[in-house]
Amino acid sequence: MRRLNLPNAVFVDNSASVEVASKYLELLEDGVSVVTPNKLAASGGYDYFVSLKNVARKKGVSFLYETNVGAALPVIGTLRDLVNSGDKVLRIEGVLSGTLSYIFNSFDGRVGFSEVVKEAKLKGFTEPDPRDDLNCSDVARKILILARECGYGLEYGDVVVNQFLPMACLEAESVEEFWVRLKSFDGYFEDMRSKAVSGGGVLRCVARFEGGRAVVGLEVVSKEHSFYGLSGSDNVIAFTTSRYKERPLVIKGSGAGGEVTASGVFADIIKAANYL
Amino acid sequence: MRRLNLPNAVFVDNSASVEVASKYLELLEDGVSVVTPNKLAASGGYDYFVSLKNVARKKGVSFLYETNVGAALPVIGTLRDLVNSGDKVLRIEGVLSGTLSYIFNSFDGRVGFSEVVKEAKLKGFTEPDPRDDLNCSDVARKILILARECGYGLEYGDVVVNQFLPMACLEAESVEEFWVRLKSFDGYFEDMRSKAVSGGGVLRCVARFEGGRAVVGLEVVSKEHSFYGLSGSDNVIAFTTSRYKERPLVIKGSGAGGEVTASGVFADIIKAANYL
Repeated sequence: MRRLNLPNAVFVDNSASVEVASKYLELLEDGVSVVTPNKLAASGGYDYFVSLKNVARKKGVSFLYETNVGAALPVIGTLRDLVNSGDKVLRIEGVLSGTLSYIFNSFDGRVGFSEVVKEAKLKGFTEPDPRDDLNCSDVARKILILARECGYGLEYGDVVVNQFLPMACLEAESVEEFWVRLKSFDGYFEDMRSKAVSGGGVLRCVARFEGGRAVVGLEVVSKEHSFYGLSGSDNVIAFTTSRYKERPLVIKGSGAGGEVTASGVFADIIKAANYL
Repeated sequence: MRRLNLPNAVFVDNSASVEVASKYLELLEDGVSVVTPNKLAASGGYDYFVSLKNVARKKGVSFLYETNVGAALPVIGTLRDLVNSGDKVLRIEGVLSGTLSYIFNSFDGRVGFSEVVKEAKLKGFTEPDPRDDLNCSDVARKILILARECGYGLEYGDVVVNQFLPMACLEAESVEEFWVRLKSFDGYFEDMRSKAVSGGGVLRCVARFEGGRAVVGLEVVSKEHSFYGLSGSDNVIAFTTSRYKERPLVIKGSGAGGEVTASGVFADIIKAANYL
């Protein structure tokens, strides 16, 4: 096998490609650090992920992916500091999708749910097919990554996703057909919303990790909860641990978008370079 | 001068001693990393602080003091990542004293202000002389450290502290006399509190850094502000930057106490060791 001879090099993968992610092991074995916002390695097969960490350690280089969760928000580094310093993570709760955060923060009853999603798409917040956001697969990958940082060898398939999108919408054969079907469920979503509001709550797509189980789904969040007052496309993550037991350690802020993601990638590159 | 020969050593200063803090330069020059929750070096003379950073860099060792602000909350590291990756800090706002957070979160009108302070002292939240908390000197040091991380060469004397404690209390000659005088001002504090509440707000001791100026004082915080819903002895810090402009990056959680501080010191020791 051809060996690279690039001392002190850092490979930055800004793609979302599984093919590129499959090259990390070779790169790390060649002594090249890897920095990436691409979630596919950290949320792919657990064995591959662990081998990346082990090879990086053995070679004295870095494998950094802070931007996999919450873009530049200090989520993974903070969790790692907690775990490394001997804290025990009791519960992780988060609103981990900027897109879903924006959609449910904007869904206030003035227009139907399908209109809110359409608006989010027009503003560039969603994937070309909004179901790629609404099916929570992205959120499932993120909570999986956090579970693994806590030392749990979970696989993607172990994450329970309580789909809030009706099957008819999920299974529509085209995006056009999806929009038609989503509109027909406006009443369904409005019922959910008004029921939540009349109980003093709001709808939020929450990811949880507790007792070794990762679950993602739509929840009614009450006024007392720190996820109630979320706005825009903000992410929020709350760590309840042995040391932050009565009240969690909370990190909140913009968790999506090119600018903050680039800034987080850059911070990781600096860390990789400092480590070399 | 005697030189130490301790390769890969980390000196941990868990004191609050100015004498110990004055030894850091020698230690770093001897190639010994320094980790400390002691604020006196990072908030002392600016020239000494800068020389500590420079010597650490030159010697390839670490000078880490993450626990100087918010205990183990990821405050200084996050700010450093923002600045290093080229972000511009527009504003820092924070409730940076666990003691003052507890006092104003508990001051709800059921008992007088002096009773609330007394209760905080009984619970071990205050210094032996509570004025060492109430005079905001600790908060002033913390906002100074954050200003310096943004690249501003401020001195402690440059921080504006709007004292909320009447002079009669600040200048009482004994702690006993202080308690007597504080009680006589219960009406004054209750007026402030009820005025804040009738306007829909609450009292919080807020530190700010904006436009090169650091200011600490009691403020009325409205329901919309993320500092409104604070509880217990939580700290909260909000960074508004070029990239987190519409809504700030917020970090919240327990920011005082032996356990979380020890955990933060330990995380810094691990970082110093990894860097060696």
